[in-house]
Amino acid sequence: MPVGLKKPGSLIAVNGLRLGAIHSGIKSDAGKKDLVLIELSSTSELAAVFTTNKFSAAPVVVAKEHLANGDPLRYLLINSGNANAGTGEEGYRDALKCCEEIARYHELPRGSVLPFSTGVIAARLPVSSIVQSFPVLFEQLREDHWLDAAQGIMTTDTLPKAISEQVDIRGGKITITGISKGSGMIKPDMATLLAFIATDAAIDRTVLQAIHKRAVDCSFNSITVDGDTSTNDACILIATGESGVTIDEDAQGFVDALTRVYQHLAQSIIRDAEGATKFVEIEVQGASSIADAREVGYTVAHSPLVKTALFASDPNWGRILAAIGRARIENLDVSRIDLYLGTTCLLRKGLPDKTYREEMGQNEMDREDIRIVVKLGQGEHAATIWTSDLSYDYVKINAEYRS
Amino acid sequence: MPVGLKKPGSLIAVNGLRLGAIHSGIKSDAGKKDLVLIELSSTSELAAVFTTNKFSAAPVVVAKEHLANGDPLRYLLINSGNANAGTGEEGYRDALKCCEEIARYHELPRGSVLPFSTGVIAARLPVSSIVQSFPVLFEQLREDHWLDAAQGIMTTDTLPKAISEQVDIRGGKITITGISKGSGMIKPDMATLLAFIATDAAIDRTVLQAIHKRAVDCSFNSITVDGDTSTNDACILIATGESGVTIDEDAQGFVDALTRVYQHLAQSIIRDAEGATKFVEIEVQGASSIADAREVGYTVAHSPLVKTALFASDPNWGRILAAIGRARIENLDVSRIDLYLGTTCLLRKGLPDKTYREEMGQNEMDREDIRIVVKLGQGEHAATIWTSDLSYDYVKINAEYRS
Repeated sequence: MPVGLKKPGSLIAVNGLRLGAIHSGIKSDAGKKDLVLIELSSTSELAAVFTTNKFSAAPVVVAKEHLANGDPLRYLLINSGNANAGTGEEGYRDALKCCEEIARYHELPRGSVLPFSTGVIAARLPVSSIVQSFPVLFEQLREDHWLDAAQGIMTTDTLPKAISEQVDIRGGKITITGISKGSGMIKPDMATLLAFIATDAAIDRTVLQAIHKRAVDCSFNSITVDGDTSTNDACILIATGESGVTIDEDAQGFVDALTRVYQHLAQSIIRDAEGATKFVEIEVQGASSIADAREVGYTVAHSPLVKTALFASDPNWGRILAAIGRARIENLDVSRIDLYLGTTCLLRKGLPDKTYREEMGQNEMDREDIRIVVKLGQGEHAATIWTSDLSYDYVKINAEYRS
Repeated sequence: MPVGLKKPGSLIAVNGLRLGAIHSGIKSDAGKKDLVLIELSSTSELAAVFTTNKFSAAPVVVAKEHLANGDPLRYLLINSGNANAGTGEEGYRDALKCCEEIARYHELPRGSVLPFSTGVIAARLPVSSIVQSFPVLFEQLREDHWLDAAQGIMTTDTLPKAISEQVDIRGGKITITGISKGSGMIKPDMATLLAFIATDAAIDRTVLQAIHKRAVDCSFNSITVDGDTSTNDACILIATGESGVTIDEDAQGFVDALTRVYQHLAQSIIRDAEGATKFVEIEVQGASSIADAREVGYTVAHSPLVKTALFASDPNWGRILAAIGRARIENLDVSRIDLYLGTTCLLRKGLPDKTYREEMGQNEMDREDIRIVVKLGQGEHAATIWTSDLSYDYVKINAEYRS
């Protein structure tokens, strides 16, 4: 059951973008959509980040090639249920074939299509049934099909993830709408499993990529379920320009709204993490660098012992302390560390806080949303990591994933 | 249930060493021993390695101080059920007090006693009841109480871990006997939770420390249950010299026998890991350095997705591939990687092996003892890591640890 995550509210169409989603036969359940097409207006700009996993999936390789060769991008084709990863040369050709067949409908070069896949690793993509369903898929294209698209990219997700924001900037109204998916194999190293965000702002490609990268770093690149960086992660930002409002890097109101959308989508993945019963925010302050702050945050977030204590609502904070103590950072001085669970102080200057009593920790641990604050006392840098707990259901979901 | 681990066979006394174990009241179950004393002859030499966790427990801090100040070491005092970690200045004084009280019995300096603790973190040690039980503890000292000592240091272990080896070296017979404990919070960074090995060989202290370090690296420093390096790890090697046979670093027959003892004790911890249903050996070959080989091995060993697939006996080897792909090593070239499950080839030069069929992988995964071989094709270095799977029982044991 997702932790404090509800079905998406009303989603606002982004002018210049149409979406369609169908069941093509990849997923065994005919009631579940597994193929999504996103059509971009010819004036749209696009920014992308992909997984850093060296076993990149075939669609990631193809998408990067198509981005590099400079054809105008017009279609994103996304399938769920099959990752087309670990599939070698055949998988690469399968991804190319899908792009070619989409491009043929409007006599475009295949480079105008970016492919995305998510699902089981090391299985061939059923290309012929996918291609056969393209006519139906094209018929589904609508500006208001965002929720369908959010459903169509789901795998072990229990709820679709989507949100819209509108901001008034320089006399014009800008819409931002995004969708994401993912609940396991989540420890993005550039972007999360799959996320697509679009706005009708007009943004130059260089600015778009810079804004995108910054928003990704403090959202999708700050979450973890299990430390397992996927082979298929991709996060895409599209700017159609249809609002007529031009955005540069200084447009703080827009950047803030965009960051809210990214953080909502990223946190939604954690709230719907496999088997999650807790939503956990780990804030590390006073680090010598952002990298150090992130290392400490991730070490706590990945500790199976911390995660099982969170699942049990057990304020066994010795496990948090042990995780901090093994984080791979230089010059950690435990006598400077303060540790908080919510507003309850556990450790002050490395020593157990005298006022702490077990029921105070229990009270904090009983919540669904839990906050851990680590003050390292080393410097001025900070980072926040979001994660989930480790439950019976995490094991069940991943032990039975293919059965 | 432990994986292929039986009760220890007959243990051979090491001349010059006596052991005693009792229930002192730290564990709630009066039938369980929780306090162990090991007495060393005055001619014994001792080598030690400790946890690198920066939140070292009080007994680790005290033991290091006592080792550094050079008093002749005569007693090791070990309690289970309470780690005396995260206990600040009070915990430090508690550990000192225990040493002082042991030392008083024979009018020794407190520096002749090394303290060790394992159990719950962040709880005060019940010093007065421990000290009150010392007369009974001294009465228990016997040369043949190795099994009692192995039982006395257990926490979540389901079986005691102990082994003896004898080797004929240079006309004399040498005995090696060791005990260890631990089944969670296991990813030693210098040594595992607790292990005590003794031999009646005569070994110079410098040589002893060198032999000890080398044996630890390919045994206790090559296992992981959950990636959580404990605050209390310690591994001790004692040489009493009573056999009259002197050993130097070139005595390969002795080093081999010692390494067998260390590996047995380390692997026993994995076979009895919390909730384990599989014993997994991950061999990484062809790495540019031993550090790279270990990084790849540990990345696979710590992946919750690999561990849950192992629990399910699911040959979902895409998860192994994804873990290798995110390992933090330089210049990983996936087109050189071969991957095997037992003798079954999964991946050849980075591509799925043409002869692989699902039932071959299933056959390998159905075993209790599973071997994963990764050939990186980068260089000449190799490392082997041993680990366990991630089961419902791991979550259960750690969620209910304090309840």
